[in-house]
Amino acid sequence: MRDTIKTELNVFESFDPVIPPTYRKTPYVCLGNIDPVLQLKVLDQIEKPRLVLGDTMNFWIERKRDELLETLKRMDVLVVNESEARLLTKEPNLIKAAKIMMGFGPSIVIVKKGEHGALLVTESTIFSAPAYPLENIHDPTGAGDSFAGGFIGWLARTDDLSDENLKRAVIYGSTMASFCVEEFGIAGLQDLSYLKVQDRFREFRELSRFDEVEIA
Amino acid sequence: MRDTIKTELNVFESFDPVIPPTYRKTPYVCLGNIDPVLQLKVLDQIEKPRLVLGDTMNFWIERKRDELLETLKRMDVLVVNESEARLLTKEPNLIKAAKIMMGFGPSIVIVKKGEHGALLVTESTIFSAPAYPLENIHDPTGAGDSFAGGFIGWLARTDDLSDENLKRAVIYGSTMASFCVEEFGIAGLQDLSYLKVQDRFREFRELSRFDEVEIA
Repeated sequence: MRDTIKTELNVFESFDPVIPPTYRKTPYVCLGNIDPVLQLKVLDQIEKPRLVLGDTMNFWIERKRDELLETLKRMDVLVVNESEARLLTKEPNLIKAAKIMMGFGPSIVIVKKGEHGALLVTESTIFSAPAYPLENIHDPTGAGDSFAGGFIGWLARTDDLSDENLKRAVIYGSTMASFCVEEFGIAGLQDLSYLKVQDRFREFRELSRFDEVEIA
Repeated sequence: MRDTIKTELNVFESFDPVIPPTYRKTPYVCLGNIDPVLQLKVLDQIEKPRLVLGDTMNFWIERKRDELLETLKRMDVLVVNESEARLLTKEPNLIKAAKIMMGFGPSIVIVKKGEHGALLVTESTIFSAPAYPLENIHDPTGAGDSFAGGFIGWLARTDDLSDENLKRAVIYGSTMASFCVEEFGIAGLQDLSYLKVQDRFREFRELSRFDEVEIA
């Protein structure tokens, strides 16, 4: 659990994002957790994105709900945590909540559940991703952004939006988040190699894999 | 969350279990959630069980901790939920808590996490089982007993205590619990067939399965 004591928007208070021309054809757009009005301003400057992912939080859900609902109409993927999902939909059941959020616009909803993993819901699949069993979590700061980056990074690299590839993307997101929280600040991410990422991806597989046997 | 308002032990208050002779060679023993002193009395009447599974709850953890710790020494599998794991070990991290509980006796610990699935921890593996994505939970009563029954039933039927088979047993346990909570009382369990169980087992696989692809 976290409680928001005070939110200081600082430079975001009067920020007017201008996307450099060379970035305007970006196919995979990741809208970080900022004012939904700013998210929309960013999006308006992108030419025909292939996929738009957006993050949000309690602050915007409570104070800018209408603006957020407008922005959600333009998102393909919404990434929220459990409490944000419940706050946004007023529905405690996460599967129902995901379906309500899909009604707001995104065709893909991801609910992050911290130590309980993540849930991916699309029109055609539900995927339950495990959490990496960390005994020591040094710093949860940045876990959500690491997840979003790993998720959309995999999609941008493979350019495949099938359910099977979305599932892999959730695991890459979870992989990046697990490295993030293992160390303080960005220490867990700065020395990462592709090999280390692949190794952890495989650990996620081992963690959740089981098979079926026939019995007489 | 549940709160215990009052516990009426009723017949268990002065119960002195006597196991019929024909049951004394039972290889797979499931000690339901009763007074740990009674669990031990049951166990003392069983001849060389192959596997002893035990359940417990906050009432015994708080009031009969010493007796419970004695009984735990004789269990091979401890099945608890998240809050019981934390209450018993005073450790919030579930992986650490599982390892502490293994120090109490059981070589296999299962932490049930309701809508978040279950965690199996043995000396050589950690397995994260998904929860069945139920939109409507009609009656959670009996979910824990259904889980324990499905789990030990699979082991008794296959007589295989490998990590791979324990993982399957966790999924069979989760399968039985999902049928239990879907309907009121025992309605979800009484018309079950092996085919229905197998179908849901496969749904659990689909729910958590993902593969790896090589990229250039």
